[in-house]
Amino acid sequence: MKIPRELVSVLKKEKVFLLATHLNPDGDAIGSALALANALASMGKEVHVYNKDLVPEFYRFMPGNERFRTNLKKSLSKNPVLVLLDCNSPERAGLEQYSFRKSVVIDHHETEKNFGDIRWVVPSAAATGLMVFYLVKAMGLRVARDMAMNLYTAIAVDTGTFRYSNTSPEVLRASAELIEAGADPAAISECLYERWEKNRFDLLLMTLRNLEIKSDVAVMHITKNMFKKTVTKPEDTENFSNLPRMIKSVKIAALFRDMGNGFWKVSLRSKGDVNVAKIAELYGGGGHMNAAGFRTRGSLKSAKEKLLLAVKKSGRG
Amino acid sequence: MKIPRELVSVLKKEKVFLLATHLNPDGDAIGSALALANALASMGKEVHVYNKDLVPEFYRFMPGNERFRTNLKKSLSKNPVLVLLDCNSPERAGLEQYSFRKSVVIDHHETEKNFGDIRWVVPSAAATGLMVFYLVKAMGLRVARDMAMNLYTAIAVDTGTFRYSNTSPEVLRASAELIEAGADPAAISECLYERWEKNRFDLLLMTLRNLEIKSDVAVMHITKNMFKKTVTKPEDTENFSNLPRMIKSVKIAALFRDMGNGFWKVSLRSKGDVNVAKIAELYGGGGHMNAAGFRTRGSLKSAKEKLLLAVKKSGRG
Repeated sequence: MKIPRELVSVLKKEKVFLLATHLNPDGDAIGSALALANALASMGKEVHVYNKDLVPEFYRFMPGNERFRTNLKKSLSKNPVLVLLDCNSPERAGLEQYSFRKSVVIDHHETEKNFGDIRWVVPSAAATGLMVFYLVKAMGLRVARDMAMNLYTAIAVDTGTFRYSNTSPEVLRASAELIEAGADPAAISECLYERWEKNRFDLLLMTLRNLEIKSDVAVMHITKNMFKKTVTKPEDTENFSNLPRMIKSVKIAALFRDMGNGFWKVSLRSKGDVNVAKIAELYGGGGHMNAAGFRTRGSLKSAKEKLLLAVKKSGRG
Repeated sequence: MKIPRELVSVLKKEKVFLLATHLNPDGDAIGSALALANALASMGKEVHVYNKDLVPEFYRFMPGNERFRTNLKKSLSKNPVLVLLDCNSPERAGLEQYSFRKSVVIDHHETEKNFGDIRWVVPSAAATGLMVFYLVKAMGLRVARDMAMNLYTAIAVDTGTFRYSNTSPEVLRASAELIEAGADPAAISECLYERWEKNRFDLLLMTLRNLEIKSDVAVMHITKNMFKKTVTKPEDTENFSNLPRMIKSVKIAALFRDMGNGFWKVSLRSKGDVNVAKIAELYGGGGHMNAAGFRTRGSLKSAKEKLLLAVKKSGRG
């Protein structure tokens, strides 16, 4: 991976940095930011790490996650260089109302707009964490244990621990080096997959009870009452759609979440080359080929019928 | 990994081979045998591949799996060299009543006894498939696409697709080479984890409905009637115990399977350093640290109480 020379020189020359990442941060966003923060701190820089949202409970095993601040006051007073990680517009990071004297973008998502004085955007990279790994090495820095844990987690999350199609030889070789630098694959996997709170698991079981399969589409829903009964929150439903994907005949898994006032949030997950982004777009939503979503209003029954119709329109089901 | 010189020379010199692996073969057993069969065939050897059991339905995506025979007649008449893979005694392969003029063992399990004229046993290897990968390279053979698919699957199965503690830098680097040789990580993962028949999934949901959690032990059971209702078989319950492991507080997951005549088969799975083999041994069973089992007789209630008592005796719960 070719690293822009001016990126390395800005990181070496400047003294104060504000690292920021996208709203509802995931493992790749958190891990990339923390690893780069570590690297810059080891060079004697002043580093602030920002996210508009709190680090979700299940990512708090990531070393140094307490560095994240939801407040910008202190950092802005230092006139820092902004570094956006795992996103490429100030809006995605909730920073649209601020301006910075210099800005840097490090991301693997398709560009939304041309933001950033220095832009390093590589959509073919499996994870932003992979890019930060190469960057740290290119700067001649040691990959410390905490950095290795954060970068391995970042890569693991964005490749489904090496199950998605972005699992390239490069991804595996970088991960091998990260293990040598101190990342613990089993401990990280346990933290990612085997630390569910009991009430979250109860909500999953409750949700699976209403699973219906219509041709190759699996449909489930969660009502407000189900959240209440299990004392859970919407963020607890992450990955729920993966379970019905276990079934051979299922190509699309849909989860309907009651948003109140007659609104439903619909999350779609698909297998292989089934494009759910196209289905979501029919109702003003969006996303990626295998993970997308949209919002709709109406009764649960009509919302489900709407989805099945969209699936049909897209040439499936 | 150091490969015995006499192993390479026997494989090069001899003309007819019988490759055999353990009863109830898993992905590592099947993949290792098929890859070595491929390698030997490419050298112009006559190769027979044997297992006493049929290749399970969910491993039939592995290329060349139809080479497996459950019948020995034809191969024995050729006076072959026996190669045991992923096991190290004739008993484990159901071959105890035969004798061979020469025998080879390639395995990563602890040795049961000293069988084999040539023994290559490496308990520290993550998978027998990893050993076969090095062997094929040491013999100067090309790793063909089918071979790569089988060896990647072998390694994936025995490392929980890179989630277990045997996920070493070496494992990831070998897997990177196998992708370069044609293995498809996403397709293999889909075959391993997302090809459940609907009735198997129904049995899982039915089983999860009786899940109970007593301190850090998750207990579930399957009655004969549940198999009957869902038209499923005992082999369909593989990996069921992994689901309750998702819960943070659960350290041990136990599945009780009705064997008829008052017998229960108990499968135990544990996290981290919780040793379930020790618990199973208390009732004449056995296994590994994180996966073990035993049989017991009595009512379901008393069988469950027995387990919880054993957990207590082992110093837990």
